[in-house]
Amino acid sequence: MLIPELQLRRDKIRVLMAQQNIDAAIISCNVNLLYTYGQVVSGYLYLPLNAPARLFLKRPNNITGEHVHAIRKPEQIIDLLKENGLAIPHTLMLEGDELAYTEYTRLAAMFPEATIVNGTPIIRQARSIKTEIEIIMFRRAAAAHAKAYAQIPSAYREGMTDAEFSIEIERLMRLEGCLGLFRVFGQSMEIFMGSVLAGDNAAAPSPYDFALGGQGLDPSLPGGLNGSLLQKGQSVMVDLGGNFNGYMCDMSRVFSIGKLTEEAYKAHQVCLEIQEKVASMAKPGVVCEELYNLAIDIVDKAGFADNFMGINQKAKFIGHGIGLEINEVPVLAPRVKQELELGMVFALEPKIVLPGVGPVGIENSWVVTADGVDKLTLCTEEIIEL
Amino acid sequence: MLIPELQLRRDKIRVLMAQQNIDAAIISCNVNLLYTYGQVVSGYLYLPLNAPARLFLKRPNNITGEHVHAIRKPEQIIDLLKENGLAIPHTLMLEGDELAYTEYTRLAAMFPEATIVNGTPIIRQARSIKTEIEIIMFRRAAAAHAKAYAQIPSAYREGMTDAEFSIEIERLMRLEGCLGLFRVFGQSMEIFMGSVLAGDNAAAPSPYDFALGGQGLDPSLPGGLNGSLLQKGQSVMVDLGGNFNGYMCDMSRVFSIGKLTEEAYKAHQVCLEIQEKVASMAKPGVVCEELYNLAIDIVDKAGFADNFMGINQKAKFIGHGIGLEINEVPVLAPRVKQELELGMVFALEPKIVLPGVGPVGIENSWVVTADGVDKLTLCTEEIIEL
Repeated sequence: MLIPELQLRRDKIRVLMAQQNIDAAIISCNVNLLYTYGQVVSGYLYLPLNAPARLFLKRPNNITGEHVHAIRKPEQIIDLLKENGLAIPHTLMLEGDELAYTEYTRLAAMFPEATIVNGTPIIRQARSIKTEIEIIMFRRAAAAHAKAYAQIPSAYREGMTDAEFSIEIERLMRLEGCLGLFRVFGQSMEIFMGSVLAGDNAAAPSPYDFALGGQGLDPSLPGGLNGSLLQKGQSVMVDLGGNFNGYMCDMSRVFSIGKLTEEAYKAHQVCLEIQEKVASMAKPGVVCEELYNLAIDIVDKAGFADNFMGINQKAKFIGHGIGLEINEVPVLAPRVKQELELGMVFALEPKIVLPGVGPVGIENSWVVTADGVDKLTLCTEEIIEL
Repeated sequence: MLIPELQLRRDKIRVLMAQQNIDAAIISCNVNLLYTYGQVVSGYLYLPLNAPARLFLKRPNNITGEHVHAIRKPEQIIDLLKENGLAIPHTLMLEGDELAYTEYTRLAAMFPEATIVNGTPIIRQARSIKTEIEIIMFRRAAAAHAKAYAQIPSAYREGMTDAEFSIEIERLMRLEGCLGLFRVFGQSMEIFMGSVLAGDNAAAPSPYDFALGGQGLDPSLPGGLNGSLLQKGQSVMVDLGGNFNGYMCDMSRVFSIGKLTEEAYKAHQVCLEIQEKVASMAKPGVVCEELYNLAIDIVDKAGFADNFMGINQKAKFIGHGIGLEINEVPVLAPRVKQELELGMVFALEPKIVLPGVGPVGIENSWVVTADGVDKLTLCTEEIIEL
């Protein structure tokens, strides 16, 4: 990673720290280290407001440099700060929404005189506005993601289960360079590579806060595909995470086993209309809840409100920020007063679930430009018959 | 899940709670909910010492029952406890090593009069001794894991990269029912389905605390395969996680592209000898560090100490407990005075990395029986030429 890019990212965090009179941050979660150091390491990036960052490193043991200090345990950081003439901070921020309680309190105890504040919202705010290089990374991921999705019809064989179909698509994604790992914010969220939902399984409620649920194959992972045979007249929605370089590109496409009902094609067009209208309204300064309300208006008028974003258990959002994790800020949801800003990247995913058919709709990843939004994930949006 | 099984698991936790005068626990991490409730949910299992457990449930919305209460936020738990005649605990345990700091303090703030203690070590201790049903689950996972591994030679084609080979093995695992998700304890540990390490990449240091490293394909996930071509004279170690039903079965096997050096076969036999000697010594009451020291003695005498468990960066263990997560207690490592107990399940993984060749060695999953240990993962252990 180029130093100026890392400098830029660190300074984005510093600006927000300064607004809250925070003197220094300790960053030790993988995604935040990736953001501020350019790679995942096991250690601590110490980020003072007014001095260069320093890396206190446990592993790997092959990184060296002027501002890199090998340590075995975090308590060594204090002496190393003093030896290097750095002031002990008055107000220190730690990753309170991400670090485990015992790890947070261990780090806090190293600074008994300091006020400790939760830095996760600040770091997530900084991360929500992507740099030009991050947007390039997203474009690359989106191109690979779309290239894999374009091959999905070749993966289908009659008589497959949803699991068998998913496995062949996972393979296509991996062959295009997908790293597989699905990074998500929040300890209770988990998923394998994403979800492939066919027929009525798309309406099954799950514990996870993704757009749609699914029963899953096992109570230990109750989400996504459930092993049922793909059958004529069913729709299948493919929504696998596009992690090709750390950035979680997000994209859903719908396929059909034979023809679907007329209602299903109509519902799909409603989702495409929502996408078009929301995208044409979205630009810097537009409030997130207005985009959500616009979608609800359209789906209400079209008569699909009861089936929008699930049936028995509905997702209360139509889109979400994406970045190093799948669920970043902003969220396109009711009562979210946050405004879109230049450089934000989000997934927009209007989806309708029809009993006896399955899920229809669309999901693309978008970047907020100076005067609108630009679609990153370019691939046929109509329902493709398998 | 059968109620008597869940009762048994909850009582294992209660016994340890009673020893520390803990009145109640709130359990809300996925693996611990899976352990105590039999499935992952979004919510809180309230486990009093002397009353039946209650589930305070956010999602999914299709679970009901006498002791199930729908909530929107955890603060509703207090009133529901009072309404149902349950005493507010004097000492409450929360999952301190697993919950994020802000989530832990939010739950703790609901009980301002109570002493709050970290319950993670207690729950992990309870989980370390598997029930009979858990051992059956492990045996099933091991059989599926071995069945997938037996097909690995069919996945190889000359001219493949390590990534391409891994992708075909991942597919075999998934087709045998592997859920894919790799659950690991500790926020900084992460991996996709496991690792496939070929040639010198096996010696590359990584930030993660797995037995071997690997450079990875990208700085965002610096571990495991690195995309290099598989070449004549190289060894390839396959170490994918066997999560077929929530239980993380662990198993490594070595393959060769053509023949390896004589030294490599010798080193492999040293690892098999370590496995045999450690397994023959292991039984209830044996101290973990003694098993580690035994392995070190053998590898020292055989002249492979410098290459054991990595070269430049070495893992400081030869085995680890497995269960719902890949890294449970006990750990077979220096200075670990813990004794093996009946019902523990662990992975034993003596491995040697040879420059110019790659990794050799073995990994199997074992259950501690009344008078020894029983191997769960049954599949050829010699190096298989591809």
